[in-house]
Amino acid sequence: MAKLAGRPVRLKRRQFLAEGPQAVREALVLHGKRIAAGQPGIVREVYASEACLDRYPEFEELAVGTSARLATDDVLAAMADTVTPQGIVAVCDFVDVALADVLDAGPRLIAVLCQVRDPGNAGTVLRAADAAGADAVVLTGSSVDIYNPKAVRSTAGSLFHLPVVLGADVNELVSLCKDRGIGVLAADGYGQLNLDRLQDENAARRLGASTAGSDYALENPTAWLFGNEAQGLSEDELALADHRVAVPVYGAAESLNLGTAATVCLYASARSQQPR
Amino acid sequence: MAKLAGRPVRLKRRQFLAEGPQAVREALVLHGKRIAAGQPGIVREVYASEACLDRYPEFEELAVGTSARLATDDVLAAMADTVTPQGIVAVCDFVDVALADVLDAGPRLIAVLCQVRDPGNAGTVLRAADAAGADAVVLTGSSVDIYNPKAVRSTAGSLFHLPVVLGADVNELVSLCKDRGIGVLAADGYGQLNLDRLQDENAARRLGASTAGSDYALENPTAWLFGNEAQGLSEDELALADHRVAVPVYGAAESLNLGTAATVCLYASARSQQPR
Repeated sequence: MAKLAGRPVRLKRRQFLAEGPQAVREALVLHGKRIAAGQPGIVREVYASEACLDRYPEFEELAVGTSARLATDDVLAAMADTVTPQGIVAVCDFVDVALADVLDAGPRLIAVLCQVRDPGNAGTVLRAADAAGADAVVLTGSSVDIYNPKAVRSTAGSLFHLPVVLGADVNELVSLCKDRGIGVLAADGYGQLNLDRLQDENAARRLGASTAGSDYALENPTAWLFGNEAQGLSEDELALADHRVAVPVYGAAESLNLGTAATVCLYASARSQQPR
Repeated sequence: MAKLAGRPVRLKRRQFLAEGPQAVREALVLHGKRIAAGQPGIVREVYASEACLDRYPEFEELAVGTSARLATDDVLAAMADTVTPQGIVAVCDFVDVALADVLDAGPRLIAVLCQVRDPGNAGTVLRAADAAGADAVVLTGSSVDIYNPKAVRSTAGSLFHLPVVLGADVNELVSLCKDRGIGVLAADGYGQLNLDRLQDENAARRLGASTAGSDYALENPTAWLFGNEAQGLSEDELALADHRVAVPVYGAAESLNLGTAATVCLYASARSQQPR
């Protein structure tokens, strides 16, 4: 089990570890929902300490249908990625889905991570995308493994909340989005469009005010491309997008970090898409 | 020097380490600006490898007026907090300022970190506050040390861009803000005001549309209180604020992480305060 902390074993078994009460709870809830829908659940095994079950007795019921076992702190420590094991670990089947399934469901908001390398950043953006109500998160083939224990932890359970596509080819993705009328925006500090202006235009349309032309309607279905934390999007990736959009920097910061930029972009789209 | 990675020595000497080309450049630029203004600069010593100076020759000029020395990789590694030393380190005087100085300057937007414990989170919020054009960042006494090497690194140079106040008492801060007509908002997932609604009201006012009363005018000078990453703001801290404001969660995420919540709140204020 402990070997699931390493990528080769994860890929071979198509399983990963969810650690800690929050992540395991979300995995088990999804498990239950899928079983209720006649699909196989995703949780294969749960290992919990007695202290954890004393504190969270609901896990006994949640774990019905899985192979649930009491484990000593030593066993949990050996399985866990963290220095302080959190008392409960679940072995889960991979949850990622096919790109076609995501696109066929008529998504309104998609976050695409291109060559994102840090597991904490990937998890943070996935959690922010979940909060913003995105319909899916797509990671390109050159991005970090979202099943990395640190990435899973950073999602704070959001990995189990919305569809995730892995190993996508960004050319194919963009082409499929355009076929379906989904606008493709590149988050780019040097972008020619200003995100605040797009939001102003959206606000004006809502209020029936006349606007002097529109750069891009944020209320439209949109896929956002976010790039590598150090280099941003590559020229090739930027060229694929319909528009390059900059989050305005009002202070002296040279740039935004990936999580901050993605949060502002996704929330701007989410706000613009809400019925009000 | 290496001992500056530890807090007791930092506090005793009132100095800290800025590591890597970006942070050292920002420190040196501030140094130069302060010297030009007749104040003492903040950079006392710079240690750089020959390889770093070959790559960034501008440091030779920037470091004029400091004690600049060539250092071997071994020396840099011993000083650095990171596994891979970045070729350049500066010993800087503390840059924090007094709360009264910040408030007397007539700030429009302040980020207050209450009991924030993770250095990476504190640095990330400081960088986001800089990007949003905040006038200052205030850390309460129970928050992490912003001069912690990891925190400094996470600010990506923003520590040198805007005034930072350390060790503030939140009661005193809120009282001084209220005296000066600065609204105090608590970022709180359970808040009774919805941040999107406040932004809608602001947009309507800008466009001259009638609004059915206003909950809080985001364009007013505002201090945002952000809480501990695990517990959020305490009941005492929440009670100090004029309003508790929730960032809406459109998806299934249970909550936002601190960096995400702070980013959305600060950008909402910044957007609302911009002249357009």
